[in-house]
Amino acid sequence: METLRESLSEKSSSVEAQGNVVRALKASRAAKPEIDAAIELLNKLKLEKSAVEKQLQASIGNGSHNREAFRQNVVNTLERRLFYIPSFKIYGGVAGLFDYGPPGCAVKSNVLSFWRQHFILEENMLEVDCPCVTPEIVLKASGHVDKFTDLMVKDEKKGTCYRADHLLKDYCNEKLEKDLTISAEKAAELKDVLAVMEDFSTEQLGAKIKEYGITAPDTKNPLSDPYPFNLMFQTSIGPSGSSPGYMRPETAQGIFVNFKDLYYYNGRKLPFAAAQIGQAFRNEISPRQGLLRVREFTLAEIEHFVDPENKSHPKFSEVAKLEFLMFPREEQMSGQSAKKFCLGEAVAKGTVNNETLGYFIGRVYLFLVRLGIDKERLRFRQHLANEMAHYAADCWDAEIESSYGWIECVGIADRSAFDLCAHSEKSGVPLVAEEKLAEPKEVEILVITPVKKELGLAFKGNQKNVVESLEAMNEEEAMQMKATMESKGEVEFYVCTLEKNVSIKKNMVSISKKKKKENQRVFTPSVIEPSFGIGRIIYCLYEHCFGTRPSKAGYEQLNVFRFPPLVAPIKCTVFPLVQNQQFEEAAKVISKELASVGISHKIDITGTSIGKRYARTDELGVPLAITVDSDTSVTIRERDSKDQVRVSLKEAASVVSSVTEGKMTWQDVWASFPHHSSAAVDE
Amino acid sequence: METLRESLSEKSSSVEAQGNVVRALKASRAAKPEIDAAIELLNKLKLEKSAVEKQLQASIGNGSHNREAFRQNVVNTLERRLFYIPSFKIYGGVAGLFDYGPPGCAVKSNVLSFWRQHFILEENMLEVDCPCVTPEIVLKASGHVDKFTDLMVKDEKKGTCYRADHLLKDYCNEKLEKDLTISAEKAAELKDVLAVMEDFSTEQLGAKIKEYGITAPDTKNPLSDPYPFNLMFQTSIGPSGSSPGYMRPETAQGIFVNFKDLYYYNGRKLPFAAAQIGQAFRNEISPRQGLLRVREFTLAEIEHFVDPENKSHPKFSEVAKLEFLMFPREEQMSGQSAKKFCLGEAVAKGTVNNETLGYFIGRVYLFLVRLGIDKERLRFRQHLANEMAHYAADCWDAEIESSYGWIECVGIADRSAFDLCAHSEKSGVPLVAEEKLAEPKEVEILVITPVKKELGLAFKGNQKNVVESLEAMNEEEAMQMKATMESKGEVEFYVCTLEKNVSIKKNMVSISKKKKKENQRVFTPSVIEPSFGIGRIIYCLYEHCFGTRPSKAGYEQLNVFRFPPLVAPIKCTVFPLVQNQQFEEAAKVISKELASVGISHKIDITGTSIGKRYARTDELGVPLAITVDSDTSVTIRERDSKDQVRVSLKEAASVVSSVTEGKMTWQDVWASFPHHSSAAVDE
Repeated sequence: METLRESLSEKSSSVEAQGNVVRALKASRAAKPEIDAAIELLNKLKLEKSAVEKQLQASIGNGSHNREAFRQNVVNTLERRLFYIPSFKIYGGVAGLFDYGPPGCAVKSNVLSFWRQHFILEENMLEVDCPCVTPEIVLKASGHVDKFTDLMVKDEKKGTCYRADHLLKDYCNEKLEKDLTISAEKAAELKDVLAVMEDFSTEQLGAKIKEYGITAPDTKNPLSDPYPFNLMFQTSIGPSGSSPGYMRPETAQGIFVNFKDLYYYNGRKLPFAAAQIGQAFRNEISPRQGLLRVREFTLAEIEHFVDPENKSHPKFSEVAKLEFLMFPREEQMSGQSAKKFCLGEAVAKGTVNNETLGYFIGRVYLFLVRLGIDKERLRFRQHLANEMAHYAADCWDAEIESSYGWIECVGIADRSAFDLCAHSEKSGVPLVAEEKLAEPKEVEILVITPVKKELGLAFKGNQKNVVESLEAMNEEEAMQMKATMESKGEVEFYVCTLEKNVSIKKNMVSISKKKKKENQRVFTPSVIEPSFGIGRIIYCLYEHCFGTRPSKAGYEQLNVFRFPPLVAPIKCTVFPLVQNQQFEEAAKVISKELASVGISHKIDITGTSIGKRYARTDELGVPLAITVDSDTSVTIRERDSKDQVRVSLKEAASVVSSVTEGKMTWQDVWASFPHHSSAAVDE
Repeated sequence: METLRESLSEKSSSVEAQGNVVRALKASRAAKPEIDAAIELLNKLKLEKSAVEKQLQASIGNGSHNREAFRQNVVNTLERRLFYIPSFKIYGGVAGLFDYGPPGCAVKSNVLSFWRQHFILEENMLEVDCPCVTPEIVLKASGHVDKFTDLMVKDEKKGTCYRADHLLKDYCNEKLEKDLTISAEKAAELKDVLAVMEDFSTEQLGAKIKEYGITAPDTKNPLSDPYPFNLMFQTSIGPSGSSPGYMRPETAQGIFVNFKDLYYYNGRKLPFAAAQIGQAFRNEISPRQGLLRVREFTLAEIEHFVDPENKSHPKFSEVAKLEFLMFPREEQMSGQSAKKFCLGEAVAKGTVNNETLGYFIGRVYLFLVRLGIDKERLRFRQHLANEMAHYAADCWDAEIESSYGWIECVGIADRSAFDLCAHSEKSGVPLVAEEKLAEPKEVEILVITPVKKELGLAFKGNQKNVVESLEAMNEEEAMQMKATMESKGEVEFYVCTLEKNVSIKKNMVSISKKKKKENQRVFTPSVIEPSFGIGRIIYCLYEHCFGTRPSKAGYEQLNVFRFPPLVAPIKCTVFPLVQNQQFEEAAKVISKELASVGISHKIDITGTSIGKRYARTDELGVPLAITVDSDTSVTIRERDSKDQVRVSLKEAASVVSSVTEGKMTWQDVWASFPHHSSAAVDE
């Protein structure tokens, strides 16, 4: 470790020396290529310095901390600095509900602003904002009323509720970890249960719980059989009690039901995307995993509507060259791990189903990395066949590695026409798109004409059921019936509403094909849905940006959130070096300028030592700190390098805003202003 | 009208001529004062031109339209252009629920961004973000469970529910308007009922409904007696059914319960403000007034915590000179109307209770006016004594005049210590602030010491109740008891938990006062609460920005939303003059530049005439339109003046961003670039 420390000190000197060279060249008005070369060298030296710093830190952190300790450190810091607060804490809190405190709220607001810029603005999406309160019929159509459930078991004496799969999982894990007496055979069985339990039916799950004699964890009382519990918060709309409603479990349905209006708004052109940011709700049975599984959360969802016959994307070339960790179905099934793929190749080979899906995978990647997610701990995992809904064409999850393991943070699914069809059917309003054909197309349509008189004579009261079944035949069935009738004179026909076969004679139905000219093609668009769990992304970001480093004296480890300026909750702190009216006035002037250009900042006029104040802002992830130590100039200190430059009072706000808005890098600043030594400072 | 038209044409020529003068001066590198003077004259001419335009428009609009027709026109335009959409429309909609469609969503997002800039950032407030789902105990403490109700009556046969006061109001209004046979006496009575019905008790309201024989409006069936209906959406947290919860009716409670943490975060300093933007819910009995009374809405609330003994505000001088319409209690009671007051004077005279309240009134005024609310249709109305809660020190509503009359859009209330006390009491967690005293203060404290032995002998099993009642006495009660015991030896004492009087003898309790030195003052802060109904502000803004103007040919009236660039949903449209690959490519280049600097815009490449495309964007309130008519330069057209300038292709995006971000006015642009005649265009 000492070698690393020496190396770091050496690198720091080189950086400082080269910074002086750059400034001298600038002052002498040297030719541009010379200055550029000097700056390039400077940046290279800075990179080397930072690499050594990282190694040093890793060598300090490694080994002594495990995942849980790391998480505890992150979570403690987050809670102490009010990034989040357990909701209604003074009343004992409510499981699965968390507030964002001031810095957390600012991070969230920055993430959402960037989401709007990156997706809505740059892709010209149509943003909508629909209510959370949703009438039952909408969620009946979407399937949530019937299927949005988890299996629950109850303590038969106390009534306490548990998630059935959690109990089984805990049982298996505990046996495997702690019971050294179990046979290899038994261990294999438990592992197998863990692997396949997601696909268990209610009965299978119940049977396993019985077989293993699992009881209520708190009381050891017997448990009920598992039964489905709907995860939506239920309520009632209006005073009569006759209109059940739910708090929406996702924002997507609000977009689907508006498809027709949005399609018209877009000039009846496909493809287009609509987007929504908003609260969603999930009445978890027993929330675990802290900030990752909560009962109310912010979703940001995109529904990109596209012609199912043409899923190419005009801007795909812009992301085709990206390379990142992907984990296709095949690699998962054959026990390999995620590896780097070129997105363009993954689409070309058909690993990713289509260009539009690929385009969004690429855009999601760029979004997450620009936020500050570590690209080495980000992968795109394809859903296995049994994970996907029957209607889905392909699904990929952006998974981020955290102390809880790989966490699904964004789902990117090609849901085909499922949602629009479901709402069309339930509402009776066609949710379709039209395409004018260049020239009319001749199409053959099937005509089934039941002869009601004959059917009436033969089936009496059942006539209606038979007629409906005949009319519902698809082309293949109908043409087969026609053939059989022509050869044999009659045919056995299953009427599902009667649950039996009937005999249809040749004279009871006429089946034919007609030719017709059509000028337009009417079709239900496919929808490609990237869906972002904003809270999960933010939590993973906290873990990826968190680090510790020794205090200057080396006595303690100080926490630092290395947020990129884009997401940092506060962009800059301003503090007078000592408590003194002149410096405080100067600090206020800078503060006013920062506010007027929209830079969030914090003045700290406490008498605490400057080093402690730096440590405080590092722990909030503030990228820049202005220290007022004169009434004409100030120092600006960068959080990660701890480097400081001196700038005039007047320039301070504009330098900060240039860096935090990405118009300038800290390297540029470092190369342009005199360096300030922090020797006097007790960092 | 012809005179006005002539005058307009004359003014337009002067503006154009003066614009040429300014450009010529600039080109000749004339001295700055000369150019400035020429620009000043130009701006004066422009103002005159715009005044004539306004008169012209008023003379067209007046008389022929009444309020309802105007509203219908606004609402039709809003719905046609998807500013809003009745929620779940394909399923028949739900009363009181509306979606924001793409332009509405953008307006909302702009209003909220500006709110964050104007309040949170410029005032360094602590923003928090709490869940909508709220456990019962929190809303029990706040009083919502018991008191957040409206009186409801039911159709006794059909079960349909109505708001009792609405039915009575409708009855009185209809009688007064349509029944010409009623006596002057009866009319006076009905008017009186309308004036005082807000203060009616349940019984009074029921008696009036009976007296007037009011029946269910839809069926004429008899009605039930009125009874309170709680307006919160109720739900259940978790699976057990044993934790009732509600969707929050306001965002404020989330802040109050976090007071302690926020106070520590702020370094235990007062004053400070916390703020929250979020959804709130109100299960209206029968929503009316379209977009103004809805069941789910966005609130933006500030809770400013302040020492009740010092409600001065350090920045009050910044707003003290503002003058605007105020409507103090006194003016309302004496039948006068709102008039202009200077805010500083209103506070100095005590019309407004304190500086902090006054400061927020001033900031709210600036916020609304900068959004585009017409200051002549904005007033601050003080609550009458009977409108205010008993604990409130003073309340003012920012009311905006719309076609529905004066609408409360922002409430600014000094709620004293009510909310923090309520949650302290219910939760048992003290929500207080401390002030270190410069020197210790001697205080007298009351000491009540029940003598348990004597009490036990006298009251046996009831001893505990008696002890608790004795200890709960306030100072006045205790000192009175002491006096009576000393004079008479015993005293009758009511024990509320026993619901009877008991006799307390001198030897059963000792009551005294002790002197104590205190180093700090512990107190419950007062809270000043500005609470913004974002949806209402936006609706009023729509009405204030909406206008019509004749098409160029004069055949029809075209709609225009004159949004300031700050709130305009789309800042700029880009269209190629004709469909042509070269122009389309240029349009795409501009679009990309606009997106990269965060300017929301829309490309319109339809073959429609340029005039129709201008009309389309006017109706969306787009302030600037770029028309690509060459591959080196483009024209930029301003919505309100319809003036056009020519700028190079490269400058287009930066000119648009300067204007929409307020760095340049259109006057500056007009003075700096060559004018483009729109003669060729069919506007």
